[in-house]
Amino acid sequence: MDTITIGKKAKAASRLTAAMRTDEKNEILLRTAQALIENREEILKANKADVEKAKQAGTPAPLVDRLALTEARIEGMADGLRQIAKLPDPAGEVINMKTLPNGLVVGEKRVPMGVIGIIYEARPNVTSDAFGLCLKAGNAVILKGGSDAINSNKAIVDVFKRAISEADISPDIVQLIEDTSRKAATELMRLNGYVDVLIPRGGAGLISSVVMNSTVPVIETGVGNCHIYVDDSAKPDMALNILINAKTQRPGVCNAAESLLVSEKAAPNFLPLALKALKERGVEVRGCEKTREICDGLDIIPAAEEDYGREYLDMIISVKVVKDADEAIAHIAKYSTGHSETIVTESYENAMKFTNEVDSAAVYVNASTRFTDGNEFGFGAEIGISTQKLHARGPMGLKALTTTKFIIYGNGQIRP
Amino acid sequence: MDTITIGKKAKAASRLTAAMRTDEKNEILLRTAQALIENREEILKANKADVEKAKQAGTPAPLVDRLALTEARIEGMADGLRQIAKLPDPAGEVINMKTLPNGLVVGEKRVPMGVIGIIYEARPNVTSDAFGLCLKAGNAVILKGGSDAINSNKAIVDVFKRAISEADISPDIVQLIEDTSRKAATELMRLNGYVDVLIPRGGAGLISSVVMNSTVPVIETGVGNCHIYVDDSAKPDMALNILINAKTQRPGVCNAAESLLVSEKAAPNFLPLALKALKERGVEVRGCEKTREICDGLDIIPAAEEDYGREYLDMIISVKVVKDADEAIAHIAKYSTGHSETIVTESYENAMKFTNEVDSAAVYVNASTRFTDGNEFGFGAEIGISTQKLHARGPMGLKALTTTKFIIYGNGQIRP
Repeated sequence: MDTITIGKKAKAASRLTAAMRTDEKNEILLRTAQALIENREEILKANKADVEKAKQAGTPAPLVDRLALTEARIEGMADGLRQIAKLPDPAGEVINMKTLPNGLVVGEKRVPMGVIGIIYEARPNVTSDAFGLCLKAGNAVILKGGSDAINSNKAIVDVFKRAISEADISPDIVQLIEDTSRKAATELMRLNGYVDVLIPRGGAGLISSVVMNSTVPVIETGVGNCHIYVDDSAKPDMALNILINAKTQRPGVCNAAESLLVSEKAAPNFLPLALKALKERGVEVRGCEKTREICDGLDIIPAAEEDYGREYLDMIISVKVVKDADEAIAHIAKYSTGHSETIVTESYENAMKFTNEVDSAAVYVNASTRFTDGNEFGFGAEIGISTQKLHARGPMGLKALTTTKFIIYGNGQIRP
Repeated sequence: MDTITIGKKAKAASRLTAAMRTDEKNEILLRTAQALIENREEILKANKADVEKAKQAGTPAPLVDRLALTEARIEGMADGLRQIAKLPDPAGEVINMKTLPNGLVVGEKRVPMGVIGIIYEARPNVTSDAFGLCLKAGNAVILKGGSDAINSNKAIVDVFKRAISEADISPDIVQLIEDTSRKAATELMRLNGYVDVLIPRGGAGLISSVVMNSTVPVIETGVGNCHIYVDDSAKPDMALNILINAKTQRPGVCNAAESLLVSEKAAPNFLPLALKALKERGVEVRGCEKTREICDGLDIIPAAEEDYGREYLDMIISVKVVKDADEAIAHIAKYSTGHSETIVTESYENAMKFTNEVDSAAVYVNASTRFTDGNEFGFGAEIGISTQKLHARGPMGLKALTTTKFIIYGNGQIRP
């Protein structure tokens, strides 16, 4: 099916999903969860073909692992859908309803966005998650996964479509673009009038390509060059704990720390012990000149200018000694991707200054950047982490998949 | 100055505006208002050059009128800035602050967007309005007006910059792109990293060009193909009042009605009197076959298919007889630009159906579409009317010029 036809079908189906009651949407979520379990053999078989192909192409083992499904992972996908069924429905709420002097009653009603496009990479569980979250918020969804997972994605969506049809609902509410070419991706990015928002989920290359090529509104997600700033008054133990956690607990994710800034007063005591601890855990440290002087015996690699702008997603960290909180904030303004930053401090003034002046989606005092996550923040689910400022910023739950419209009740009012 | 330099200066200045207290921003608004009055001769002289040029180019009189400034209009611009100074500051509010089980305190703080770009057409008062609204919300602004008004815009921004400098604030908080070429506009649309959002204000051509060419996030504004649906049970007098008001009170604006839908039950009684009344007021009526049959003696022009998709912005209306509310809703789904639609009805069921199912920024029962306006809705000011679904929908007040960031207070929390 060509991309425009897919867009038209999704748009028509979005009128159905928007009109569905919460219990109807939940029933579909539970049915599709059950269908995943019942048809797991079919899905595993399709996934095996993807995995074989990836192995033959010499794909690195961690990527093959992200692609591979198991019975347990399919159970996890089904559990995810059941969890989404339990979440409150974000649509339908009416906010700020008030009566104007002329008697008009005006309110803003939270309503589904319409058609949501998701462009993503290898992990087939995104297929299931994205469908569930979009549907729960009342949207039709167009999925465009990577070519690596195309057989898995086809099988999963096919299972969904059959389960949805059995409930007498149009299977057009979930669409997969099976054409994995760049051309099909570009067509999806230009489906203005059919797609209301496009959310890319994946690496920096994918996200930048969507931002640069899409004429449909985009929510930019995910790239995180996160900073930890250790201030003059930081408690060394707390700073060390936060640093180790933010850098090493799961280095491959966007909310992991990539850069350590230390005030010149704190540096002589803190840096030697901190960098030793990082190196003991296998972290490669790339430091500024002052860092290397202070940690003379530790063989710190010199940091290049471009190190400060990098999201390593690996056991590597850049380190810089700064004069004070102001210089840390200026450094972050220059190099940050606007994801998550933390200050470790006992100074009230610097804690306030940092949270006021740092322009990122999540700004922390005395905590690990690793908490920037929809589940950690209590949203119950997450479709991605927005690093742009329009519509949604930071972890996006179901609410980010809705919009509002004004509803106005009159009894004949005209404008004088 | 080239566009990238302007972007960089605005980005740096946005850190200043974001840190300003409300009273500091208000002081600048009052100073610039005063400066407009004090320097009105200079502005009028520059405007005269624009007006002369427009007249020599044979610009139609209504457009010349929109371009022309007078002492009274400059007073109006100054009053606008003083009004903005009186509005509450949207930035700084912290919403949904809560304590997580692990003791982290998480809240969403409303903060300025950063740098806002405004691309607009002939009216020089937009220069003043847009500056005032962006500043009040804590943003730096980059203005790109049309070539018609370039002398006026230069003079106004120059007056602002002098007044701002006198207050010891960097004049970079307001920037005018003086190069009126298409190339400069395209450069502005691609200033990712320097411009946080771009808001086009003007006709359909301008808006579509920005949507199709911008890689910076855009808020689409303004095009309104607004519908009035007269249901079976509508009170004829109320329906007529609303129709006349929505079509003729100010036909050149986006919330004016462009299309009338009438249920087949209401049509035989309502249409002859309604279309006669419209024609008496000078409205050209383009109707469907049934409309022409019912209003046989009124010489109704046959409506072409494309008439239903048009925003006339003129004393013209398209008319169609539909079976019922469902057909009206389907027609609106097909042809509407998603701005404002109204149903005139005494049926509870159809009123609910219409407000639930019509997917537009403002959906009315028994009132004129002309109320879709920031001032009418009580926002105190308006930067435009969004017809897209991301971030802001419908009339946009100061809040639409802000974003949020998560602030998180901890005491050493790390992720287990």
